[in-house]
Amino acid sequence: MSAFDDATRVSLDGSCEVHDGWDIGGNANGGYLLALGASGLRALAGRPDPVSITAHFLAPGRPGPAQVEGAVVKEGKRFVCVSGSLRSGGRPVIQVLGTFGDLAASGAASGPGSDAGVTVVKSGPPELPPVEQCRARRSSDGGVPIPLMDRLRVHLHPDHAGFVDGRPSGDGVISGWFEFADDRPLDALALLLVADAFPPAVFELDVPAAWVPTVELTVHLRARPVPGALRCVFRTRFVHGGMLEEDGEVWDASDTLVAQSRQLALLPRT
Amino acid sequence: MSAFDDATRVSLDGSCEVHDGWDIGGNANGGYLLALGASGLRALAGRPDPVSITAHFLAPGRPGPAQVEGAVVKEGKRFVCVSGSLRSGGRPVIQVLGTFGDLAASGAASGPGSDAGVTVVKSGPPELPPVEQCRARRSSDGGVPIPLMDRLRVHLHPDHAGFVDGRPSGDGVISGWFEFADDRPLDALALLLVADAFPPAVFELDVPAAWVPTVELTVHLRARPVPGALRCVFRTRFVHGGMLEEDGEVWDASDTLVAQSRQLALLPRT
Repeated sequence: MSAFDDATRVSLDGSCEVHDGWDIGGNANGGYLLALGASGLRALAGRPDPVSITAHFLAPGRPGPAQVEGAVVKEGKRFVCVSGSLRSGGRPVIQVLGTFGDLAASGAASGPGSDAGVTVVKSGPPELPPVEQCRARRSSDGGVPIPLMDRLRVHLHPDHAGFVDGRPSGDGVISGWFEFADDRPLDALALLLVADAFPPAVFELDVPAAWVPTVELTVHLRARPVPGALRCVFRTRFVHGGMLEEDGEVWDASDTLVAQSRQLALLPRT
Repeated sequence: MSAFDDATRVSLDGSCEVHDGWDIGGNANGGYLLALGASGLRALAGRPDPVSITAHFLAPGRPGPAQVEGAVVKEGKRFVCVSGSLRSGGRPVIQVLGTFGDLAASGAASGPGSDAGVTVVKSGPPELPPVEQCRARRSSDGGVPIPLMDRLRVHLHPDHAGFVDGRPSGDGVISGWFEFADDRPLDALALLLVADAFPPAVFELDVPAAWVPTVELTVHLRARPVPGALRCVFRTRFVHGGMLEEDGEVWDASDTLVAQSRQLALLPRT
């Protein structure tokens, strides 16, 4: 069993564990927490794919016992809506609202090339140099250790990695390749992790940003990924009032947009 | 009292009414339903501004008595997270998850020009001709009546109104001006309505789309708008697997981005 499967396992009664090693400086990654919550909630939904899922982040996720609680809000023919939370020590860590379905059944599984009805694609995957010409994201890259990065192979486009050396491009864009370090296949739960696994795009702006706590993260799963590394791009365009958005696109090896994400985050004054 | 205030009034016990006249062919507009739900939930939160709010759409909203039910998930110093629903006839119409705060207190009220800390703005408001050169959206424009449009002054950029005459631009972009027909001031609740008050951007693609039911709508409020008409732009870039996203930006008269929206919608096969 891969580390990610192990770390997102939820028992029938909702009990689970926030695993160590999926964190940044001791706080579990937001995408990992969302994947863990979704793992429990999709069992309630009885449908495999979180077609649209939103988490509000309420408290840091620390390693240790946790609980997924939730209830079906509405069960329809195509979708099941579930509301719930991931709790630890009796307090909510994230509150989640999701609509679950079956992307295989919707005809989207094989992407735009398949018999899935009308297809319009106004832009394509980010253009990335081969992995070996990209900059590997390391657990020791940041001011605090990023153990999460030992679980993943995140390779950044060199044009979007200037922040590592204190020379951000100013574009507010970060792109790169994503795979699990243990080559676990990429599926719906993995896409939730991916949506928050890259360095914050605001790092590539000329902005003092050491710590960018997420208020809210929404991910839309648009198709199931085919095997192969994912290409991802994250962009922050607006920073004001102490808040910023980050928009993400995740593309699979068949050039299908498999996920879109947006988060609202805080930019604490430094 | 303006019609919108009347239509979004929620009693202390959560009882309210889905008002007639905010609909498209008999189904209440999604932004109106979200504003009505948020009106009830923000009373629970005790904070005025839905900084980030997500609704999942579960059943059509019909005129008549309704109920906002919800509970505070977490009360923090800056934000209060609330989960709840707008219900009618005992069934959920929308399920809502929101984080509420006070955008005035956060220093964002006066936009990027104010003393609100770091500001980065990577693009500006949509360029629109003066209102009188735009195309007024009429309640009689569609295949079904759109009574909602009698409540609003939505004026579309003529380059983005070709769909009305069966000649979509193919760009998937719709932009225009927004005001209330009764000149009600634009505030946080109004921005939730605005996020879903324009014709679907997919109408400006070469795609057979008569009916685009929303699965999920998320709105981030980035600042309180100053007085004056809003400039809005909505864009759909990816249609596949019977689903599409629509991204919105809402700008106020001081050139401040006051809201961002994204929705996931279905494109039923025709």
